[in-house]
Formats: sequence, structure tokens, C-alpha cells
Amino acid sequence: MMQQRPFDLLNKVLGQQILIRLKGGSVIRGKLSSFDAHMNLVLDDAEELDGGELKTKIGTVLLRGGNIIYVSPA
Amino acid sequence: MMQQRPFDLLNKVLGQQILIRLKGGSVIRGKLSSFDAHMNLVLDDAEELDGGELKTKIGTVLLRGGNIIYVSPA
Amino acid sequence: MMQQRPFDLLNKVLGQQILIRLKGGSVIRGKLSSFDAHMNLVLDDAEELDGGELKTKIGTVLLRGGNIIYVSPA
Amino acid sequence: MMQQRPFDLLNKVLGQQILIRLKGGSVIRGKLSSFDAHMNLVLDDAEELDGGELKTKIGTVLLRGGNIIYVSPA
Amino acid sequence: MMQQRPFDLLNKVLGQQILIRLKGGSVIRGKLSSFDAHMNLVLDDAEELDGGELKTKIGTVLLRGGNIIYVSPA
Amino acid sequence: MMQQRPFDLLNKVLGQQILIRLKGGSVIRGKLSSFDAHMNLVLDDAEELDGGELKTKIGTVLLRGGNIIYVSPA
Amino acid sequence: MMQQRPFDLLNKVLGQQILIRLKGGSVIRGKLSSFDAHMNLVLDDAEELDGGELKTKIGTVLLRGGNIIYVSPA
Repeated sequence: MMQQRPFDLLNKVLGQQILIRLKGGSVIRGKLSSFDAHMNLVLDDAEELDGGELKTKIGTVLLRGGNIIYVSPA
Repeated sequence: MMQQRPFDLLNKVLGQQILIRLKGGSVIRGKLSSFDAHMNLVLDDAEELDGGELKTKIGTVLLRGGNIIYVSPA
Repeated sequence: MMQQRPFDLLNKVLGQQILIRLKGGSVIRGKLSSFDAHMNLVLDDAEELDGGELKTKIGTVLLRGGNIIYVSPA
Repeated sequence: MMQQRPFDLLNKVLGQQILIRLKGGSVIRGKLSSFDAHMNLVLDDAEELDGGELKTKIGTVLLRGGNIIYVSPA
Repeated sequence: MMQQRPFDLLNKVLGQQILIRLKGGSVIRGKLSSFDAHMNLVLDDAEELDGGELKTKIGTVLLRGGNIIYVSPA
Repeated sequence: MMQQRPFDLLNKVLGQQILIRLKGGSVIRGKLSSFDAHMNLVLDDAEELDGGELKTKIGTVLLRGGNIIYVSPA
Repeated sequence: MMQQRPFDLLNKVLGQQILIRLKGGSVIRGKLSSFDAHMNLVLDDAEELDGGELKTKIGTVLLRGGNIIYVSPA
């Protein structure tokens, strides 16, 4: 089945682990709980990574879409 | 119950302690008193943290949403 | 009485001393004279602070909302 | 008489000397000739200051509102 | 046939390999799966390049349009 | 005659030499050929200046308004 | 014939060689194939220049308008 719009990817990975790269270089990994049209995201069990390794546990987090560079299924 | 939209998280933590990371690296912790659709937030008993430690007591503060990277229940 | 929206805080401190942190690190203190929906603010008897100490007297000043990080009753 | 909105200050100082601080640190001083809702300003007899001293005479100048940090009667 | 609008290029290269340069200098290469009017893009089999060489495999990725400098068929 | 709006200055200097300072410090000088409501400008016989001296001849150029700090009749 | 609006210049140079300076200093040269109201541009036979010399051949490229400082017929 063809994927129609970029945000369909977010729908498809709801409840799954994703990886987010933010402006400034931070990388956050967590389970996608919700998103909106501005790409604001809520992640559960989120953690900040450094060089692929766990740096800080954050837990539930609301990320502003405007700072996101990319979102990728982890 | 499923969480529908990212801002539902803000509703859920009204009156509770949250942690906010701002562009430029500042971290603010305080009790969420109100928010709007731009993610402007008012915190009570806010304080700025440095490496997880208290740096400055701010008290009540209105944070502009545009500078927020993420919001997390503390 | 419950506070409904972040901008209610500005209404509440009209005529009172507030502290504003701007992008780039400047801190301005003054008496809030007026504000609008973009968080543009006019302060009276404003002064720029450096490390909590008076650096420069500015007097009346119109601050663009877009550069504001936070506003706090002083 | 109470001041209602931040832009009322600009109306009040039309034709008078004002001081403008821009993003990046430049300070411009000149006589306010006109402004619009984006805080675009035209100054007459404008000059750039450095540490409060005259650095360059600019003459008439149209400043884009988006780069303005604050406007203050000089 | 004449090309009418810049976004026609994205339509034309759907399913093909493209190269994206992001603000900050990152270069991402992958197969264009979908895009929207904000130039948000989903790539499959994406990888980050460094000096034209493979640096990291990313897989499927949703890139925010706002960080894109250019898109080019690879 | 009173000047009503900042953009009236652009109308007044159509066909005349103007000086533009851009974000990042570049200074461009040229003859204003056209402008729009976003302050996008077309200059003829444009040249980039460095310390008031000619650095590069550009010729006709379309400058995006969003990068302009100020425009001044040269 | 008078030129009415800045974008008329883009219409006039469709199919011709143009030079684009981007935020961050990159200079791209190529043949203008299409543009839209956001100044998004598609260039054919594009190449990146360094000090006026060819640095990298890019080929066809879609440039986001938001990163453009200026466009000039080459």
C-alpha cells in the first residue's frame, strides 16, 4: 500500500520506539504516544542518547515540533 | 485511556512539577499553573537548574513557548 | 481564583516591577506599563542588569515579544 | 491617562529622538518618522552608536521590525 | 514538457534516490517515499553521508521541511 | 508633507541609489528597481561593499526581505 | 518597460543562468527552471562555487526559498 503523506509515518509508528534528532544535536529515543500537525510529539520512556549510548532518562516528554530535524523508527 | 494529542499531557500535569528545557540549554523546574496553544507556560515556584542542581530561584514565571525544546513531568 | 491563561499573569502584574530575560542573555527589570498578544511589553523605569546588579538605566522601553525568554514578577 | 498598548509608545514619540537596540548588538539612534504594525521603523538623522559614542552617520533609514530588540525614547 | 512549479520536481522523483542537505551541514541520502506542502519528506533506506561517504544508516526517516536547504536527485 | 508608513520611504527612493545592510554583516549598494510587501527588493548595478569600499560587483539582484536589517538612501 | 515587482526578475530569467547566495555563505549557480511564491527555486545544471570557482556539481536541485539571501542573473 502506498504511503500518501509524511505524517502517515507517525501514525504507523504510534506506540513504537522512535528516534528523534533535535536542532543542536540532541538525540532522544522513546515510544511515540501522540503527535499533532506541528509535529509536537509526546514520547513515553524517553531517554537522551550520546553517541548511541544512554545519557539521561527523561521519562514522558512533550517535544516541540519546531526543534525537530528528523524522526525515525528506532 | 488513550492519549489523543500532545497538549493533553500539559492538561494532565496542571498543578504538578514539570521540567522544561529551553533553547540555549537552560533547564527550568516548577509547578505548571497554566498554558496556551503556543505552549506559553506559567510556572509557580520555578527555579533554574544547572546539572540537576538548583542554580537560581525564579518564583512565578511566564515562559514563551517558542523557546521551549521539551516539557517533562519532573 | 484559578489562573486560566499564561497572559493573565501579565494582567495581574500591570504597574508592578517585573524581570525579563531576553534571548542572548540580557536581563531587563522595570515596571510593566502595557503588553499585547505578541508579548510586546512597555516597561517604565527600566534598567539592564548584569549578574543581578544595575548595568544601564534605560527608562521607558518597548520590548519586542519575539526576543523574550521569560517574564517574572521581580 | 493610561497607556493601553505597547505601540502607543511609538505614537507618542513620533518626531522625537529614540534609541533602538538590534539583534547582534547594534544600537541606532534617530528621530522616529514612521512605523507600522510589524514595528518596521523609519528614522531621520539616524546614527549608529558604539558604547554610547557616535560610530557612523546613516541619515534616513528604514529598519525592519524583526531585528529590533527594544525601542526607547533617547 | 515544461516544469511548472518547484514541487513538481519532488513528484517526479517519488520512489527515487535523492540527496538532501540540511541546515548545519548534514547530508542525507534516501529514496523519496512522500512529501507535503511544507517540504516535510519521508525517505526509505536513508543514510547520513560525510564527505560523500556513508556515515550512519538511518532507515526510514521523516525530515522536517524547515531544516532543508536543498533536495537533489542523487 | 508627513510620511505615513515606513514603506513610503521605499516608494520615494525608487530608481535611486540605496544601501542595504543584511544579517551577517554584508552591505549591498544599488539602485532600487522594485520592492514588495515582504521588503523583497530588486537592485540594479548592485555591488557588495566592505568597509565602505567596493568588494564585488553583483549587477541586478533580488534580495529577500527576511535578511535585511536596514535600508538607507545612499 | 518598468519592472513592477521583485518576482518579475525571476520570470525574466527563467531558463537562464543565475547565481544564488544562501545563508551560511554557500553560492549555487544554475539555470532557473521554476520558482514559486516562497522563492523556492529549481535549478538545472547546478553547481556549488567556492570563491567563484567550481566546487561541486549538483545537477538538478530544489532550493528552499527560506535560505536564500539573494538571486542574481549570472
